[in-house]
Amino acid sequence: MRLALSSNEDFKPSVRVAVAMSVVLLAHEQFPDRAKTAVSILRYGDTEITAILDRDNAGKRVSDFLSDVQDAPIVAGMDDVSSCDELIVGIAPIGGGFEDSWRPDVRAALERGCNVTSGLHYFLAEDEEFRSLADEHDCELWDVREPPTDLTVSEGVAADVDAEIVLTVGTDCSVGKMTATRELYEAARDRGVDCGFIPTGQTGIMIEQWGLPVDRVVSDFAAGAVEQMIRERGDDHDYLFIEGQGSIVHPAYSGVTCAILHGAMADKLVLCHEAGREAIHGYEDVSLPPLSSYVERYEDLAQPVHETSVVAGALNTRGIETDDAAHAAVADYADAIDAPATDPIRFGVDDALEAIL
Amino acid sequence: MRLALSSNEDFKPSVRVAVAMSVVLLAHEQFPDRAKTAVSILRYGDTEITAILDRDNAGKRVSDFLSDVQDAPIVAGMDDVSSCDELIVGIAPIGGGFEDSWRPDVRAALERGCNVTSGLHYFLAEDEEFRSLADEHDCELWDVREPPTDLTVSEGVAADVDAEIVLTVGTDCSVGKMTATRELYEAARDRGVDCGFIPTGQTGIMIEQWGLPVDRVVSDFAAGAVEQMIRERGDDHDYLFIEGQGSIVHPAYSGVTCAILHGAMADKLVLCHEAGREAIHGYEDVSLPPLSSYVERYEDLAQPVHETSVVAGALNTRGIETDDAAHAAVADYADAIDAPATDPIRFGVDDALEAIL
Repeated sequence: MRLALSSNEDFKPSVRVAVAMSVVLLAHEQFPDRAKTAVSILRYGDTEITAILDRDNAGKRVSDFLSDVQDAPIVAGMDDVSSCDELIVGIAPIGGGFEDSWRPDVRAALERGCNVTSGLHYFLAEDEEFRSLADEHDCELWDVREPPTDLTVSEGVAADVDAEIVLTVGTDCSVGKMTATRELYEAARDRGVDCGFIPTGQTGIMIEQWGLPVDRVVSDFAAGAVEQMIRERGDDHDYLFIEGQGSIVHPAYSGVTCAILHGAMADKLVLCHEAGREAIHGYEDVSLPPLSSYVERYEDLAQPVHETSVVAGALNTRGIETDDAAHAAVADYADAIDAPATDPIRFGVDDALEAIL
Repeated sequence: MRLALSSNEDFKPSVRVAVAMSVVLLAHEQFPDRAKTAVSILRYGDTEITAILDRDNAGKRVSDFLSDVQDAPIVAGMDDVSSCDELIVGIAPIGGGFEDSWRPDVRAALERGCNVTSGLHYFLAEDEEFRSLADEHDCELWDVREPPTDLTVSEGVAADVDAEIVLTVGTDCSVGKMTATRELYEAARDRGVDCGFIPTGQTGIMIEQWGLPVDRVVSDFAAGAVEQMIRERGDDHDYLFIEGQGSIVHPAYSGVTCAILHGAMADKLVLCHEAGREAIHGYEDVSLPPLSSYVERYEDLAQPVHETSVVAGALNTRGIETDDAAHAAVADYADAIDAPATDPIRFGVDDALEAIL
């Protein structure tokens, strides 16, 4: 999981070189439903996960909750972990703050000589205690969300690369954009399609070991950061799958969404949604508008910069018990957005890929 | 121009306390048409401007170009300036970089003991030579665009303040949003309306001596920065006039625009445009969509978070020679956006205010 490197010396995204052998994921009180970073690393990372830290679920296993990712024991804290080279903070709360109840585990990890990786807005390397422990025990603190300092504004040229650009967009945060993007990318790759994955958030960057945290860059440079990544990789592939962020009607994050939409100059959009979601997560006063209005809104907003259309949908049906009911929800969703749809995890992405490739 | 202070100790926007007596504006090769910061300070600042630095126009005066702002001589460089307490970088190029051809003037100012203020993305205080000269000569370097470090995400509550919120939005950058906002604010205040001005960019912050540079904050926090300013001042006034930024279809800056639109939760929008503008400035391949589509796009994008409507328009007619032709252009613009319109500088804002108050 630690081998990818930027090929261009002028381009310095977040990137790591050390190879971690056994990784522990911190997800206290939030595994699995509100621990999307942890779950994605279990699913897409290629490193062995030694344990999950979640004091509420200690004694259980990942497989008690999830059947389609690698298994690992869940324990209460670092004291119960036998082997660890790296601790990854695997939860991403609204606001990106650091919970002080996590401090003993981060401290214990550093005291044992483990590296610590985090995608929080709060940078561990700027925490005096962590910085000092890391120095003392020769550990690395990797703040995935810390962007390079040499970013600039978009030139509006992402569409000039050779690759066809496919961007996931969403009805809200945490509906499965990263998962849909990664599933589409891996399935296309498995079919022999020459394609690349462009991460824009902390989880995608941890998995890809490369990328720029678009939500953390200076707002004037957010579109430029997306464009920079696309220019870096866009001529090497036939397709680029870009991980979207947030939602165009999110009270806090819509700016990031809009910057990615215009910066990416996508040729095709995949609209992601979670079945049953009726209001913006964490902003329950804000109801989601009708699904069809998202299609119009994204296409209409993109159009003056680069014409695009929603060609497929991804519906997260994790809240639906039976496959039959999930199939019905996917069919309804496809009708609502007038495009082929699937749940990438539950039903695969074949139909969506047909519409994309 | 240096007296305003935040009333809330928990809130630390960019703010200054020193009182400058005579100010020089750096606007090399760009005065007046591409020096919007300089022109706005001439128009709205309450400090005497001693000189404009513009080597292309040395020997002329401000009044040779502009009749409705304070007059000042234009000179080639600091060597031709007799009195100066503060040098302000009065140009804001795309990308916000520092031109090295300005260095001799900044250096000369610091060597004479003048403070230097800049709204560039490039922070003068991080420039080794300037930092060292400022220390040596006991000068202050004020980087207006450097945001505080304690910002966070929007809670989606700006609409809860007592004030009615009026936001300017635009068809492009540099069409006159700051000017329209300031003219509306000053005219409303002159009528006895209890109102406040919320700046979001470097020029507005320099004039108001308070505010957060929304285009410079972490993109996840851009909406939150707007909300924070509105919460700080919104219960003290009946109306708040919020300075918008960019355009919702700008290839580089749309994310900032979108963050302000949703963060401000505006009750009323004023759509700003420059007569004759046909493509995005600096992105000539991107044609402006029809004017009426902006009305729909802004209203439709805002609606899921907070319903709003475009109630007035501001048209910058500086490129039109005669008042008759300008009147005709304003009338056409009002028709196109289906709302009362004016050129705030040329014709005042009475009709627009009627639609707002």
